[in-house]
Amino acid sequence: MELVSENRVAGGWHRRYRHQSQHTQCDMTFAIFLPEQVDNTQPVPVLYWLSGLTCTDENFMQKAGAFKRANELGIAIVAPDTSPRGEDVPDDPQQSYDFGLGAGFYINATQAPYDKHYQMYSYVSEELPALIEQQFPVSEKRAIAGHSMGGHGALVVGLKNPSRYCSISAFSPISNPADCPWGKKAFSGYLGEEHKAWLAYDACHLLEHSKDSLKVPVRVDQGEADQFLDEQLKPEALVKSAQAADYPLTLTMHPGYDHSYFFISSFIDAHLDFHAQYLK
Amino acid sequence: MELVSENRVAGGWHRRYRHQSQHTQCDMTFAIFLPEQVDNTQPVPVLYWLSGLTCTDENFMQKAGAFKRANELGIAIVAPDTSPRGEDVPDDPQQSYDFGLGAGFYINATQAPYDKHYQMYSYVSEELPALIEQQFPVSEKRAIAGHSMGGHGALVVGLKNPSRYCSISAFSPISNPADCPWGKKAFSGYLGEEHKAWLAYDACHLLEHSKDSLKVPVRVDQGEADQFLDEQLKPEALVKSAQAADYPLTLTMHPGYDHSYFFISSFIDAHLDFHAQYLK
Repeated sequence: MELVSENRVAGGWHRRYRHQSQHTQCDMTFAIFLPEQVDNTQPVPVLYWLSGLTCTDENFMQKAGAFKRANELGIAIVAPDTSPRGEDVPDDPQQSYDFGLGAGFYINATQAPYDKHYQMYSYVSEELPALIEQQFPVSEKRAIAGHSMGGHGALVVGLKNPSRYCSISAFSPISNPADCPWGKKAFSGYLGEEHKAWLAYDACHLLEHSKDSLKVPVRVDQGEADQFLDEQLKPEALVKSAQAADYPLTLTMHPGYDHSYFFISSFIDAHLDFHAQYLK
Repeated sequence: MELVSENRVAGGWHRRYRHQSQHTQCDMTFAIFLPEQVDNTQPVPVLYWLSGLTCTDENFMQKAGAFKRANELGIAIVAPDTSPRGEDVPDDPQQSYDFGLGAGFYINATQAPYDKHYQMYSYVSEELPALIEQQFPVSEKRAIAGHSMGGHGALVVGLKNPSRYCSISAFSPISNPADCPWGKKAFSGYLGEEHKAWLAYDACHLLEHSKDSLKVPVRVDQGEADQFLDEQLKPEALVKSAQAADYPLTLTMHPGYDHSYFFISSFIDAHLDFHAQYLK
């Protein structure tokens, strides 16, 4: 694991690291915020943040404005990249923004040529937490959050691993990827045309089939002026699925807010407070 | 004045506008944060933020994390661009990052071919405030702040116009541009080789000759791990000049912090609180 850069921020530290990933078979870069509490002997809990289409580990760390509250609460934040990277990693032949590089969708691809590197589900749910817990003074208390494609990722990773995460939150998630244009394009490319394979990565489907599983509190926030709301995000499908399964999910709609980091920065403190309740 | 974009943020609004500038003789883009208090009849005061080398109006607005506190305090923030822009605007023939486009240094150039468009001092100190006060529900209470080249700009604009600004603050300013590599390059290119012309835009010189002028409170913050500290920034020269003139300037050094927006975002709330004392 190689340190790429380091900045003091809000009393803690922002660091970027590069490491060789077994699952994605390439070098992966991630960022970590460590609160000043890591100087003490008490290990701190970790919030994993999954970013949206086109992002890297940098977007959240530069734009969300999360560090002051995270430092007060004593929570570390880890932000992975959104896809495998490198010369050997196949991109969308059309180089679109919503498939291939920067658009890994937090799933394990089964279709060539993507199946070799696009194993982001295993990377973010297994390999990265194991590395973090080995290398940093953190506890095994984990929460997961994300935005848009990363909101989908947070919901799917959290709902599929309820014993590993204390709480889940999402800004403007792609709630029902098996039934929206972004999701259909990504899932058919990475998973093939069989619809049944898609459902394993669809938050609505996972909620509907969660009756006998451990339940993790979920918070979702959505801007009403979000240009992708009706066609791509469909939070009402998420609420309907959660209600059918009696799942503890709350959706809050915010008039006037859009899909940008201006929305995330407006409510990230509320998300950190939400997670802090369950991480303590 | 044309609205370029609009985002709801932290209870208020972030908007970008384009307008034809008389002083820079080109289209200029600026950003404004309007707190929710503008919905009331009471006009709000304005903090002008001047950015550093290579920046546009966007860097501060996306990375500083200033909006929550600005909204609580009821302060609008205006961020201009850092130079004139456009096909007609001459850049450094070497296209360096520290001269020409993105590096206007908040001075009025006297040397061809820069003198036609590079009139950033008049733009930020006169034209832009007049436009803001005409177009938005703001008061004539103004403060000015900035980072690096913009910290130099805030000091110079504020010190040269003490009756127009209630308070001045700077992160990591180029304190003594007449005597550092960035400043010497910019001043010789924009103002010519005569050293006397440079002193009108040198904060140390302005402080030293401020004895009979109105004094405006100044706050300066500087990271001790800033890679540009010794060669380019020289805050100790600023303190020495302020002490010689009995000027109310405080410098706070911060161990471990660097030159990035991670430093700015860590202390922007303290700067907003500082300005709020004098803007009320």
